[in-house]
Amino acid sequence: MQCDEPVTQLHVKPKMTVNELVTAMGKAGAYNGGALSKAATIYEQMLRDPETTKFFGLAGAMVPAGMGGIVSDLMKAGHIDVLVSTGANLTHDIIEAIGCRHYHGTAFCNDVELRHDEINRIYDVYLPNKAFEHFEEFMQNVFGKLEPGSTISISGLLNHIGKNLKSGILHTAAKKNIPVYCPAVQDSMVGLQYWLFSQTNKVTVDAFADMPALMDTCFTTKKAGALLVGGGVPKNFILQSMLMTPNGFDYAVQLTGDRPDLGGLSGATLDEARSWGKITEEALAVTVYGDATITLPILVAAVMERMHHD
Amino acid sequence: MQCDEPVTQLHVKPKMTVNELVTAMGKAGAYNGGALSKAATIYEQMLRDPETTKFFGLAGAMVPAGMGGIVSDLMKAGHIDVLVSTGANLTHDIIEAIGCRHYHGTAFCNDVELRHDEINRIYDVYLPNKAFEHFEEFMQNVFGKLEPGSTISISGLLNHIGKNLKSGILHTAAKKNIPVYCPAVQDSMVGLQYWLFSQTNKVTVDAFADMPALMDTCFTTKKAGALLVGGGVPKNFILQSMLMTPNGFDYAVQLTGDRPDLGGLSGATLDEARSWGKITEEALAVTVYGDATITLPILVAAVMERMHHD
Amino acid sequence: MQCDEPVTQLHVKPKMTVNELVTAMGKAGAYNGGALSKAATIYEQMLRDPETTKFFGLAGAMVPAGMGGIVSDLMKAGHIDVLVSTGANLTHDIIEAIGCRHYHGTAFCNDVELRHDEINRIYDVYLPNKAFEHFEEFMQNVFGKLEPGSTISISGLLNHIGKNLKSGILHTAAKKNIPVYCPAVQDSMVGLQYWLFSQTNKVTVDAFADMPALMDTCFTTKKAGALLVGGGVPKNFILQSMLMTPNGFDYAVQLTGDRPDLGGLSGATLDEARSWGKITEEALAVTVYGDATITLPILVAAVMERMHHD
Amino acid sequence: MQCDEPVTQLHVKPKMTVNELVTAMGKAGAYNGGALSKAATIYEQMLRDPETTKFFGLAGAMVPAGMGGIVSDLMKAGHIDVLVSTGANLTHDIIEAIGCRHYHGTAFCNDVELRHDEINRIYDVYLPNKAFEHFEEFMQNVFGKLEPGSTISISGLLNHIGKNLKSGILHTAAKKNIPVYCPAVQDSMVGLQYWLFSQTNKVTVDAFADMPALMDTCFTTKKAGALLVGGGVPKNFILQSMLMTPNGFDYAVQLTGDRPDLGGLSGATLDEARSWGKITEEALAVTVYGDATITLPILVAAVMERMHHD
Repeated sequence: MQCDEPVTQLHVKPKMTVNELVTAMGKAGAYNGGALSKAATIYEQMLRDPETTKFFGLAGAMVPAGMGGIVSDLMKAGHIDVLVSTGANLTHDIIEAIGCRHYHGTAFCNDVELRHDEINRIYDVYLPNKAFEHFEEFMQNVFGKLEPGSTISISGLLNHIGKNLKSGILHTAAKKNIPVYCPAVQDSMVGLQYWLFSQTNKVTVDAFADMPALMDTCFTTKKAGALLVGGGVPKNFILQSMLMTPNGFDYAVQLTGDRPDLGGLSGATLDEARSWGKITEEALAVTVYGDATITLPILVAAVMERMHHD
Repeated sequence: MQCDEPVTQLHVKPKMTVNELVTAMGKAGAYNGGALSKAATIYEQMLRDPETTKFFGLAGAMVPAGMGGIVSDLMKAGHIDVLVSTGANLTHDIIEAIGCRHYHGTAFCNDVELRHDEINRIYDVYLPNKAFEHFEEFMQNVFGKLEPGSTISISGLLNHIGKNLKSGILHTAAKKNIPVYCPAVQDSMVGLQYWLFSQTNKVTVDAFADMPALMDTCFTTKKAGALLVGGGVPKNFILQSMLMTPNGFDYAVQLTGDRPDLGGLSGATLDEARSWGKITEEALAVTVYGDATITLPILVAAVMERMHHD
Repeated sequence: MQCDEPVTQLHVKPKMTVNELVTAMGKAGAYNGGALSKAATIYEQMLRDPETTKFFGLAGAMVPAGMGGIVSDLMKAGHIDVLVSTGANLTHDIIEAIGCRHYHGTAFCNDVELRHDEINRIYDVYLPNKAFEHFEEFMQNVFGKLEPGSTISISGLLNHIGKNLKSGILHTAAKKNIPVYCPAVQDSMVGLQYWLFSQTNKVTVDAFADMPALMDTCFTTKKAGALLVGGGVPKNFILQSMLMTPNGFDYAVQLTGDRPDLGGLSGATLDEARSWGKITEEALAVTVYGDATITLPILVAAVMERMHHD
Repeated sequence: MQCDEPVTQLHVKPKMTVNELVTAMGKAGAYNGGALSKAATIYEQMLRDPETTKFFGLAGAMVPAGMGGIVSDLMKAGHIDVLVSTGANLTHDIIEAIGCRHYHGTAFCNDVELRHDEINRIYDVYLPNKAFEHFEEFMQNVFGKLEPGSTISISGLLNHIGKNLKSGILHTAAKKNIPVYCPAVQDSMVGLQYWLFSQTNKVTVDAFADMPALMDTCFTTKKAGALLVGGGVPKNFILQSMLMTPNGFDYAVQLTGDRPDLGGLSGATLDEARSWGKITEEALAVTVYGDATITLPILVAAVMERMHHD
């Protein structure tokens, strides 16, 4: 083992740009600050690689925390080819897109009082019940436009919703023809609304109808890269997608607050993924442990600054 | 605020039973040790309540860690009415049920070497690739028995698999007619095998076909209780299931290694669930933070000891 | 890499003893449940080894959570030769020993109201201010018995306090002549009381007076073992104590809720300690991540059951 | 409860400064990203308040991770009046100040091999043994300049060391006459070196000699503020220092990777500190959970940018 590259004590300068700070973090180079800097290096290389299909995994309540804007912007800039999301993030995206808002609240409150005040809490974010009334109206209206008796894929259903919106993640994805996969769509308010709709209407959502197109993408792409925000279904679904092919992911950046020693996939290291062949033996990969409401904006701001220099 | 019930210093006695220890933890009564004791009290009350439908949420890689035996035993004893699982746990359950094994390994190893040795790693558990060859053979054979051209629900598909097994969670569930819901079944090796099958066969898996039966259960049960191991889709899917009804869960015990301040549902407190009405205002509810490979066996051993006294 | 020892699915039996459950956890053998079982194996071997000096590190607010009883019992049974503690644990030990109590409370409360009610909170444990009035009276009285103009070591000061108590950790340590080291004694209510005393009295507490005896122990013992509850000063002080000797710790069990990726010593793996020589290359060592209010009672109950069979 | 201030989706702009990003995080306003923005608001207000004595708590292995530069810079800029540190951070500060370096390494390595290569590991930072040889030479030389037979305080000892250095935290503190408190100085390489020295020399380090000056500061200051990096002794020692006065801290920002539910002070919320009176009822206070190698540079860069506008 060798000692080559020394730790450089970090000095902050007034009016530093985010990328300047991330670069200084890389020269300090330790713990998660060092990992975040390495993540910027890998993510930049991944975005610049024209042979790479870019996956984005979106788990955790990121849209209620204002992180949806970053996802939309990345799609607009051509930096996401495949989006895999939890149903909850898409629900909250729709809520914002139809004009409802999430609000700053506090995690240290009386939840029974909140219940009486018809406010739903997501840690320190508040969402009034009224938003779900507008949501129901919108969703039932949109679902009502589906062709009776037809069969549809989950991404098809989400694309249909996106076409009926004017902003947000689903809107941008529909406009840019970016597939949005949401394997557990039933597990969300979108799913509950669909159940309501399906009580009196017959449109079949085929759980596996998205697999052929996804697999085609995986089999035909030269290289693959993934930015994984949180774990859950999006992380696993993305990583497993290359498993049936002879290849694996060549780039992987994971921003997670989970931890590896509990055994769950959400906190698993990306090295573990090498043993499975989900990522290649030589893949550039790094995990940054921490809250993605901090690490995601920094990562993206630093990399966009680097890309903008061209 | 009052100071009534004093902390009792814990003293260990030789040959203590698990329940004796959990009871002493309750008298100490602080932090997660206190929470675990409270969880035993609530879970016992929930299991003894004849009016309560008992949900069990299974997330995290619990079967590879040997926790599947507890789930099967709880089903055999009539303590689970509805099981919601990740696809991964069911994959590993099938692997064990067809005679393959997981092995003790180490998390501190070279994953590229593991890859060369054809061993897949789950933290400190090893699973040889060969298991997936047997798994593929079994799954393709079982899927081949599905009626061509038919449409099936996810729980129907899992019940069909369970009927072709002789041990484990899916076998027991099939035998006892316990529905197993797995909203993101595509996100697992079961799903990848189904994709393989579907390339040359036409059976439609209807993503929403399980919702009516689940909703009927939720609307007709007098009371509802949930033991949630880990977060992810199982936790959210269970908690949201009562959301459309006028009621909520009356009992809820959550064993999780996640943390609330990241905003994700997996680490969210059960009080947060009160604001949504997912659990009732008066629900008995507690979260035990920690690794479920420790907290689940202790909780179940303590409660089974209490139930056995009758 | 090899796959030899299979994971055994865990089955709970009514009236299982704690050791039976821990043994079953070892056959499951994964994640922190597996680590806890391994910890029992190592701790048993360490306690049975007559050539080993047994260190115990006590950090985190363990006494307010009722874990002090275990520490006293281990001392009484001859299982602790050297105790290193935070000042806070000793403060709370004295408070209980002089007849004051900690109380069951809740972490979800209004701390300003608690302030008005003169109750101090430690997560979900309450401690009335009144306890500190009794504490002050007791401490000033005990300090008043110190010989004016003398110089004393920290462990001497703590031994002096212990001799004036009739129960608890300091009492037992004094009675059994077990040295209690508390390098940061100033950082506690004991320290603040001493500051009060020292305003009108002159007794010098020599910060380094404990080092020679500790170093003698380290240089003369054949082998050394450590049970580390939490991290902080106790963990570091214990591990560094063997650093000046040609040897290191031969046994080490660490129960911590911290995590390694933040770089702090509290969450650092024991393998990291091998690089420093704090533990030997061949040392039996394991870390169990989780709340010690759960893992400590289980570990000690299991090992005491094993020791009792003799 | 009210819903007033909406969450604003965050959009990243090329060449954003750190403060612009932190401000945008504040408009998103959720989870730890929101907390970090609030921390910047509070820390700016604290630094601008001329009536406030500014405490800085330094725990966790921050200097090996390159965070020492920030501490020195804050001292140079007059933003730290009292520094409380672990002994380890001061050890690593001295090592860098005498010209030795820490190196970028990896946490996934063989620690026995590292031992053979005479490299000590701190997560993913490497420190060659040779550094400790230089350290020993320097320390023994510096200690040798102490007046035989004298009694010295810990801060006096550290000031003496700082005067013999030409860069780093201790040097800057000595130059600027900023007291550095390190209650557990024995618990570090500085302490082990002092033990070596004390075997043949007689200088008494009085453990409590620093208390009168610290208490004078606390009793005479109009207001008090604290930036706490990590927990441990520095956090507790700082917070308890106001406990004997009629006042408490008016400002408190805590950057920690620990969690509250384990009961330890390191992860305890600052609200808990209100119940004790350590911080005032109206204190501006926030905790940011996460790795300080990320949150500290961002916080300081944002606040320095704001201060620079004047």
